[in-house]
Amino acid sequence: MSTTTIPHDFPLPAPEPSQRSDVWPWHTRRDDDGSLRIGSLNLRKIAQQWGTPVYVVSLDDLLGRAQVWKAAMDEAFWSGYGLAGAQVYYAGKAFLCKRVVRELCQEGIGIDTASEGELALALAAGAPPKLIGLHGNNKSQGALSTALEQGIGRIVVDSVGEIDRIDSLCSAMNTRARVMVRVTTGVHAGGHEFIATAHEDQKFGLSLATGAAREAVQRITACEHLDFVGLHSHIGSQIFDKGAFVEAATRLMGLRKELMDAGINTPELDLGGGYAISYWAGDSVAPSPKEYADELARVISTLSQDMDMEPPHISIEPGRSIAGPSTVTLYEVGTVKDVVLEDGSVRRYISVDGGMADNIRPALYGSVYTAALANRRSDQALTRCRIVGSHCESGDIIINDIALPCDVGRGDLLAVPATGAYGKSMASNYNMLPTPPVVGISGDKTELLVRPRTINDLISEDVS
Amino acid sequence: MSTTTIPHDFPLPAPEPSQRSDVWPWHTRRDDDGSLRIGSLNLRKIAQQWGTPVYVVSLDDLLGRAQVWKAAMDEAFWSGYGLAGAQVYYAGKAFLCKRVVRELCQEGIGIDTASEGELALALAAGAPPKLIGLHGNNKSQGALSTALEQGIGRIVVDSVGEIDRIDSLCSAMNTRARVMVRVTTGVHAGGHEFIATAHEDQKFGLSLATGAAREAVQRITACEHLDFVGLHSHIGSQIFDKGAFVEAATRLMGLRKELMDAGINTPELDLGGGYAISYWAGDSVAPSPKEYADELARVISTLSQDMDMEPPHISIEPGRSIAGPSTVTLYEVGTVKDVVLEDGSVRRYISVDGGMADNIRPALYGSVYTAALANRRSDQALTRCRIVGSHCESGDIIINDIALPCDVGRGDLLAVPATGAYGKSMASNYNMLPTPPVVGISGDKTELLVRPRTINDLISEDVS
Repeated sequence: MSTTTIPHDFPLPAPEPSQRSDVWPWHTRRDDDGSLRIGSLNLRKIAQQWGTPVYVVSLDDLLGRAQVWKAAMDEAFWSGYGLAGAQVYYAGKAFLCKRVVRELCQEGIGIDTASEGELALALAAGAPPKLIGLHGNNKSQGALSTALEQGIGRIVVDSVGEIDRIDSLCSAMNTRARVMVRVTTGVHAGGHEFIATAHEDQKFGLSLATGAAREAVQRITACEHLDFVGLHSHIGSQIFDKGAFVEAATRLMGLRKELMDAGINTPELDLGGGYAISYWAGDSVAPSPKEYADELARVISTLSQDMDMEPPHISIEPGRSIAGPSTVTLYEVGTVKDVVLEDGSVRRYISVDGGMADNIRPALYGSVYTAALANRRSDQALTRCRIVGSHCESGDIIINDIALPCDVGRGDLLAVPATGAYGKSMASNYNMLPTPPVVGISGDKTELLVRPRTINDLISEDVS
Repeated sequence: MSTTTIPHDFPLPAPEPSQRSDVWPWHTRRDDDGSLRIGSLNLRKIAQQWGTPVYVVSLDDLLGRAQVWKAAMDEAFWSGYGLAGAQVYYAGKAFLCKRVVRELCQEGIGIDTASEGELALALAAGAPPKLIGLHGNNKSQGALSTALEQGIGRIVVDSVGEIDRIDSLCSAMNTRARVMVRVTTGVHAGGHEFIATAHEDQKFGLSLATGAAREAVQRITACEHLDFVGLHSHIGSQIFDKGAFVEAATRLMGLRKELMDAGINTPELDLGGGYAISYWAGDSVAPSPKEYADELARVISTLSQDMDMEPPHISIEPGRSIAGPSTVTLYEVGTVKDVVLEDGSVRRYISVDGGMADNIRPALYGSVYTAALANRRSDQALTRCRIVGSHCESGDIIINDIALPCDVGRGDLLAVPATGAYGKSMASNYNMLPTPPVVGISGDKTELLVRPRTINDLISEDVS
């Protein structure tokens, strides 16, 4: 690191793995030669073997985080504490591949799916149907048929019409379905604060405030082929504030009390996902699974006692907080260009060989990432940079403002961490850019998890 | 249409094709039975044949708009007027398929590509290399090699380093390259106004104000294997204001004058793309190709005389204004849900079987679209609706606020027009939703242009 005095408004450099290990996969560190490695695997060698850009998933990290979640929830909701246990469902929309599904299910972790495709992949991986949940505001007939045929663990109902559709389908297929009701509690969160209102202007769920959620439960209990399993709430994304989950849980517990008093057994509450991760040096360290779990257990325990009610079984659906930090995207630097700004200062534009097609989140949500020089160490002075992709679009920015050593140049490798959630899963082929391969690393082994979608693949889809 | 009084802030309904033909493909109208047809082809039947969602491209519309552009430019820049002619390049990033490339090239329209993949597709379609241009802030070695091997018409240089790269590659391949310089003129436009500054904080181009553009040209002329063809400017997207193009053209002409005076022949100016289209009833009618072309010819002619300079050959790169209005996306309605808002009013959420994976523009840019009931006519009263997709994301909104007949329900078809540009080309498979097929219609024939990417295709990419 240079000793140059850094101006007050200067962008932050990437945190080294030794400084902020939470932003990187576990066991990421600098090798003796200055290059980055994850465990025993050197990122420069991975780039040589698989090319760039490439998504590099530390399976040890991903599975480790899932295990930490499971252990935290199992311990916090241990029946020895008078609670009724807990179940973790991995929100597959963050990143889904068969190997991840298999390994999570072996640990007793469920898979939360949100479409016919995600459900099909989970089943193709061999997930036990009882460990699968199905979400969606507009479930296709194919998704529901498969769910019923396979007897999945639960279908989270999102509208009144869906209740009748599932009941009819059960009747036609001579089966039963376990259903939950997705409740809009009025709690919205994201980042460090939350708001709590009565009404929600969104496509998901049935309103607690208007009574729509309660009516939906009553309708389910009147259906011949449906088993009512419980209530579901999902309050947002990237939530650092545990108080948001407490508020939503409190509201769900209130509805559960009403239902139980009306004689409707409500065994389970699912508190959804949205647990934050840290993306860059400017982010706080996110609460640990244990901190979230202990807080949830505390409120569920307290309210169960206050309401004089058997505690519910609890489930949660972390996605990002399991997959997000597991992955780095490796890019090769191409064009480097200094641009003089209106105030006479200079911004260095560093182009890499990927962009908004492999990571749409900066353009879509304004998400902030960081990047570190991966193939070597540099002690050169830092300079203000913007990391951009190769797309024909000026908004194709990966990192808007970052300090990088001034000798970063063509052929260098940049590693962008925390791309495991919603990177590959939202990838496009804009400008006919190939989709990078997803390479898994575990111990001293690498393996291809998802093959790249090449230019030839794309051209072969064109039958005109 | 209902006679109900519509409140002042009520959203606009879809303009019927008879009201705003510019928002729809040519020859879109309501059939006798109330369903929409494009030319002789009924959209309900297309949905039956190909399923939903589906991109339906009127090739007659797309090619017709391209021909109108070519005719407008040829006429406005006719050498009989003392000008030096013009060339239209279709910006393939908007939507590229082989049939479109073939037909455009037969008309003498060029293809502007922005990546190795786009270049490969244009060549696979049989585009004459001389009619192809290559853009990019970070051109891959593969893109440059192919471009040189094939001898494409022009490479638009975007950085100083690229000049040396191309020259070296030419030397190694024993060939020459025709290059232009992308100039940042300080003019930025989009919508109905433009700004003009000196400096530009973006990844593309070389600055006019700092002299970087001029230096790049000088460097090119000093290279042994490069032929300097001219200057290029691209000022934005969705530009209704012809004055923005006039300002950029004026600045380019100034630089050309300087270069010519310095003995550097600068035969061509490319004024880029960005010509607006209308997406919904709230958009103005965009200027016609003839209006843009006449305005450009006027300024080029005037300035050539004022500067006492031979007029340059002119090229432009429309993409959206050729492909955009050619296409409608057909969706089937699923869940319909009324949500009570804080003020007690009701918003109807209409879910369709696609979403942000087949059209990211509303989520990415806040783009406004419209939608019309496509399978039948309805005279029911209008109600305030939001059209949402099937993804597991609350931001998965296709149309934020629209008035639709209150009887729109499950199984109805909605047609969203003007999805031809940046719909398919930016499509993802988020939530493992399939990519819809692209179906071309021409006269009374339909044909598959790009095959769908199915759930099975996606699962087969997963080799884990």
